[in-house]
Amino acid sequence: MTIYNFAAGPATLPDQVLAQVQAELTNYQGTGLSILEISHRSVQFTTLLAQAKQLLLQLMNLTEREYEVLFLQGGATLQFTMVPLNLANKFHRVAFVNSGHWAERAMAEAKLIPDLAVEEIATSAPQFNHFPTVEFTGPAQYDYLHLTTNNTIFGTSLKQLPAANLPLVGDLSSNFLAQDYPFDHFDLIYAGAQKNLAPAGLTVVVVKKSLLSQMPTALPAMLSYRKLAAKDSTLNTPPVFQIYVAKLVLEWLVSQGGVSAMEAINRQKAQLIYEVIDQTNFYHNPVRPADRSLTNIPFTTGNSALDQTFITTAEQAGLKNLKGHRLTGGMRASLYNAMPLAGAVALRDFMLQFAKDHAEEK
Amino acid sequence: MTIYNFAAGPATLPDQVLAQVQAELTNYQGTGLSILEISHRSVQFTTLLAQAKQLLLQLMNLTEREYEVLFLQGGATLQFTMVPLNLANKFHRVAFVNSGHWAERAMAEAKLIPDLAVEEIATSAPQFNHFPTVEFTGPAQYDYLHLTTNNTIFGTSLKQLPAANLPLVGDLSSNFLAQDYPFDHFDLIYAGAQKNLAPAGLTVVVVKKSLLSQMPTALPAMLSYRKLAAKDSTLNTPPVFQIYVAKLVLEWLVSQGGVSAMEAINRQKAQLIYEVIDQTNFYHNPVRPADRSLTNIPFTTGNSALDQTFITTAEQAGLKNLKGHRLTGGMRASLYNAMPLAGAVALRDFMLQFAKDHAEEK
Repeated sequence: MTIYNFAAGPATLPDQVLAQVQAELTNYQGTGLSILEISHRSVQFTTLLAQAKQLLLQLMNLTEREYEVLFLQGGATLQFTMVPLNLANKFHRVAFVNSGHWAERAMAEAKLIPDLAVEEIATSAPQFNHFPTVEFTGPAQYDYLHLTTNNTIFGTSLKQLPAANLPLVGDLSSNFLAQDYPFDHFDLIYAGAQKNLAPAGLTVVVVKKSLLSQMPTALPAMLSYRKLAAKDSTLNTPPVFQIYVAKLVLEWLVSQGGVSAMEAINRQKAQLIYEVIDQTNFYHNPVRPADRSLTNIPFTTGNSALDQTFITTAEQAGLKNLKGHRLTGGMRASLYNAMPLAGAVALRDFMLQFAKDHAEEK
Repeated sequence: MTIYNFAAGPATLPDQVLAQVQAELTNYQGTGLSILEISHRSVQFTTLLAQAKQLLLQLMNLTEREYEVLFLQGGATLQFTMVPLNLANKFHRVAFVNSGHWAERAMAEAKLIPDLAVEEIATSAPQFNHFPTVEFTGPAQYDYLHLTTNNTIFGTSLKQLPAANLPLVGDLSSNFLAQDYPFDHFDLIYAGAQKNLAPAGLTVVVVKKSLLSQMPTALPAMLSYRKLAAKDSTLNTPPVFQIYVAKLVLEWLVSQGGVSAMEAINRQKAQLIYEVIDQTNFYHNPVRPADRSLTNIPFTTGNSALDQTFITTAEQAGLKNLKGHRLTGGMRASLYNAMPLAGAVALRDFMLQFAKDHAEEK
């Protein structure tokens, strides 16, 4: 039985990548050492770090001249703190678009920074069934505007970046390299890697180099982008294994045609599921169609017992981790880059059959 | 040719552990999923997290009633900041024993915390060729005393914990579970995992539960022990893979007889190398014998060209990563738990032969 993993993260990784990791796990590039034992000061690691940075910039259409890539730890949650600590230096005032749970978490952490004004300038609360519209008129006295581009829980995503005359910060964790943005419109991008890039334990930050020199100099080393950048992400021992897997995934993404090709496949995968939802009248998704996420699709039958039967039956059929987030209930299908089209087809077919089999129970 | 990896960290891991990681990498416990894809909310992960915590406490002779185990990210360097943020609440004054580079780094980061007095109460600077003696008389108006129990670079280690009537904090990174201490004398222990426990990207913190409730409540989530403890290290996505490998290493340590058995083997391994150093008059180690580290042995021939020949020739013989730290030059042999006795024997034999072959060049 083919297994497909629809978990929201940690999530499925490309089969080819897993096969390579397994094959060379006890002997990395003929060194006789495992990648798990390789020093972060070794030529093997510094080479793969440079390759990973270069591949990432290439995939995002960014230049090394303009952007710094950092491979950090602590997840997006630590970035909720690091971003204001490093960037909120001029106005001590930051603007957030509240598009759901993770935007709210980012705001809550920013509010813990002393002497910082945290303002919600647009919201889709409490239902979060659309992406809030962001409109700026006149000069914006904010250090930055923070966006969470995709909402893993509520299944919305931002399709068009707002035109704003202030620095743009994006938490791209759940559609990182899965949806194509003009990445150069961002001043700082961060993403937990465990959805689209690598195993849990790696956070990617891509930041404009011109900002680094304006950042405070007296922050603790592990909270300072400028100190971490000055040491090329090896201020202390970085998560070597995750960076290695990320490099393999980045190579795989290039081989698949890059971010725009991935977005096209992701649209196709998502479309298969949204079509069943819209056409059968058996499943429901509350999100405004224009704002629907490509990577995270929450849905329900409207009957929680039937939802539970769906989740259990799907699990038995090899369609794993379709249980929805506790805040929404129901089901959720996460269709990140590494989910093959065949996985979405298998889910579509299962949904159609399940709707037939259980039509009476609604 | 058998390869032995003497790197100071990331370091060698037990062969059995690497074999098991490789064998089950694409199918963890029959789930059809890789451990790299397993959710941190899955029963598979919560089970292994609980097992890892229990094994660690068992190995340290600590109880779950009294101590909390946290599996974090950011390395010891982030702990240099987190420890004072969480613990320096009463006197806003902390005491450090300066036993070398990493103690100095810990002090430097503590000094970046506003309104905190950082005092060096004992030092072995500038040579760091012994472990400073710590003596307390009278009441100590410090929030804690910070010790770096083993010095990876200078090759010293603390043999007997000081009798001090104040909370004891230990950075045990480089002799964690390799040297037996009365761990219950510590109020907080931290260790980067990449030397004795797991691949880089995991930091272990063991803290007295009674301290948690006294810690500040408004710290950023990822910098707050009490918030991280309240969510059992899964406040956000933890480094699942590293925790999994740590659990395998902890099982291996139990199978080897635990920490006191490991210390006995480590003494035996270290003794082989120190004997060559002391008896041949070809190699030198500057550390006071009573304070010599069991896990990190720096040595030199006294001739930098000959040192380079040693390092290159050893590498060709499969004895890898013997280059000393840039601060000391020369050679360094790291003999952590996972280095088998046979590795130390191979190095001893190589050192004897090299001394014979190059006796004229000194």
